[in-house]
Amino acid sequence: MFFLADLKEKVLSNGQGKNKQGKKLNYNNIKIIAFDADDTLWQNESFFREAECGFYTLLSQYGAADKLSKELLRTEVENIPLYGYGIKSFTLSMIETALRLSGNKINAADIGEIIKMGRGILGRPVILIDGAEEVLKKLSSKYKLVLATKGDLLDQERKLLKSGISKYLHHVEIMSDKTPQSYKKLLKYLGVEPQCFMMAGNSLKSDILPVLKIGAKAVYIPHSDTWIYERVSCDNLKNKNFTAVEKIKDILNLV
Amino acid sequence: MFFLADLKEKVLSNGQGKNKQGKKLNYNNIKIIAFDADDTLWQNESFFREAECGFYTLLSQYGAADKLSKELLRTEVENIPLYGYGIKSFTLSMIETALRLSGNKINAADIGEIIKMGRGILGRPVILIDGAEEVLKKLSSKYKLVLATKGDLLDQERKLLKSGISKYLHHVEIMSDKTPQSYKKLLKYLGVEPQCFMMAGNSLKSDILPVLKIGAKAVYIPHSDTWIYERVSCDNLKNKNFTAVEKIKDILNLV
Repeated sequence: MFFLADLKEKVLSNGQGKNKQGKKLNYNNIKIIAFDADDTLWQNESFFREAECGFYTLLSQYGAADKLSKELLRTEVENIPLYGYGIKSFTLSMIETALRLSGNKINAADIGEIIKMGRGILGRPVILIDGAEEVLKKLSSKYKLVLATKGDLLDQERKLLKSGISKYLHHVEIMSDKTPQSYKKLLKYLGVEPQCFMMAGNSLKSDILPVLKIGAKAVYIPHSDTWIYERVSCDNLKNKNFTAVEKIKDILNLV
Repeated sequence: MFFLADLKEKVLSNGQGKNKQGKKLNYNNIKIIAFDADDTLWQNESFFREAECGFYTLLSQYGAADKLSKELLRTEVENIPLYGYGIKSFTLSMIETALRLSGNKINAADIGEIIKMGRGILGRPVILIDGAEEVLKKLSSKYKLVLATKGDLLDQERKLLKSGISKYLHHVEIMSDKTPQSYKKLLKYLGVEPQCFMMAGNSLKSDILPVLKIGAKAVYIPHSDTWIYERVSCDNLKNKNFTAVEKIKDILNLV
């Protein structure tokens, strides 16, 4: 697992805009910069955390929060190949976990409460991360900007609309998963070579490692609320195309 | 509402490849042909119908099938703006309907059965519509072919992979909804003018009317299982760019 404290020690110690070898990265040939959305441009995970807290309270007779949390995560991860990412998957996983942990003893009204928790996340306002709009505005005059996000198609479109940032974007890609293969497909569509493409995001697993694997550049912007499933070991971070910054506005010092 | 019998009388009476005025359509300038997926290229709705039958049996103590059917449809339609299309939305709508109709008296095991019904659809094999692969194979040598479908991102990707038809396709677009605006966006991405684009599908609401609205051509291929929500009045079918065929192979006689 990878925690913010480790990152600060292991990666940021070399200074912003430099990789682990301390060499300044070359950003001159970048033509397209892609941004993750959830917890990179706008708040997201905190809404899930709140719903989870409600879920633990609701199911408290079936276990302590840490046990419930582990069981919910297990269900979510097992369901990813079937359901994919997003709030509907999360809601179904909460219901499945509640049925399993209660031995089918949970009552219907409580299932209704779980559904309300899911619907509650869908109705949340979009809160941009501090500095996100300024970064997009400034970079959009020099680069083609892309939004590359996972999650539910409709929900991400809804958030994008509410966010008001569409005007800065050349393209929006909502992906079922972020793998080297899916990034290759995106770059092919964008007509850009890997060395001219940079991805910025808060998930090492989804925004950084697969991008480095195809030879493109990646900037890691940690977020304290990143979902545990998205946190990975940082052993793979010794890469000339990788850098980390503390906050999104630091990107303006790189490119 | 629009039913197959009406269609045969009102549209097909003019003969395949002709519109309501009996004029043969001009297909010479077509460069890109897009196909809907569910119930145009592969079976889909029949799996939902089967799940619904199971749902009616499970909830039989709360009402007859026709009442349950109306209530489920009501929930589904009300949920579209929030959940969008696809199996996860359908599953959540079944659960919400069960909670409402039972007055929160349904037991947890039955909620588990409903979830199984949804998961069951996700695990179904992909059965191509008779003639679909032959049509795609033949047309792909002359036109750029596109798959334009609604539904869950991951589920549609899964079905596409299972179908084995990717090799005929120039592009796949999974849309949160099929509106004139979303078709305009697709055509812009494809770099094609409306008069050079043709859409084929089984939903007048999603595959035909919005396409005609932007001045592109549309071919209607009815399917007996089309979801009632996708059926619309046929008053708008007096359009020079519209034609209807009986089965997908008839497209080969048009272009």
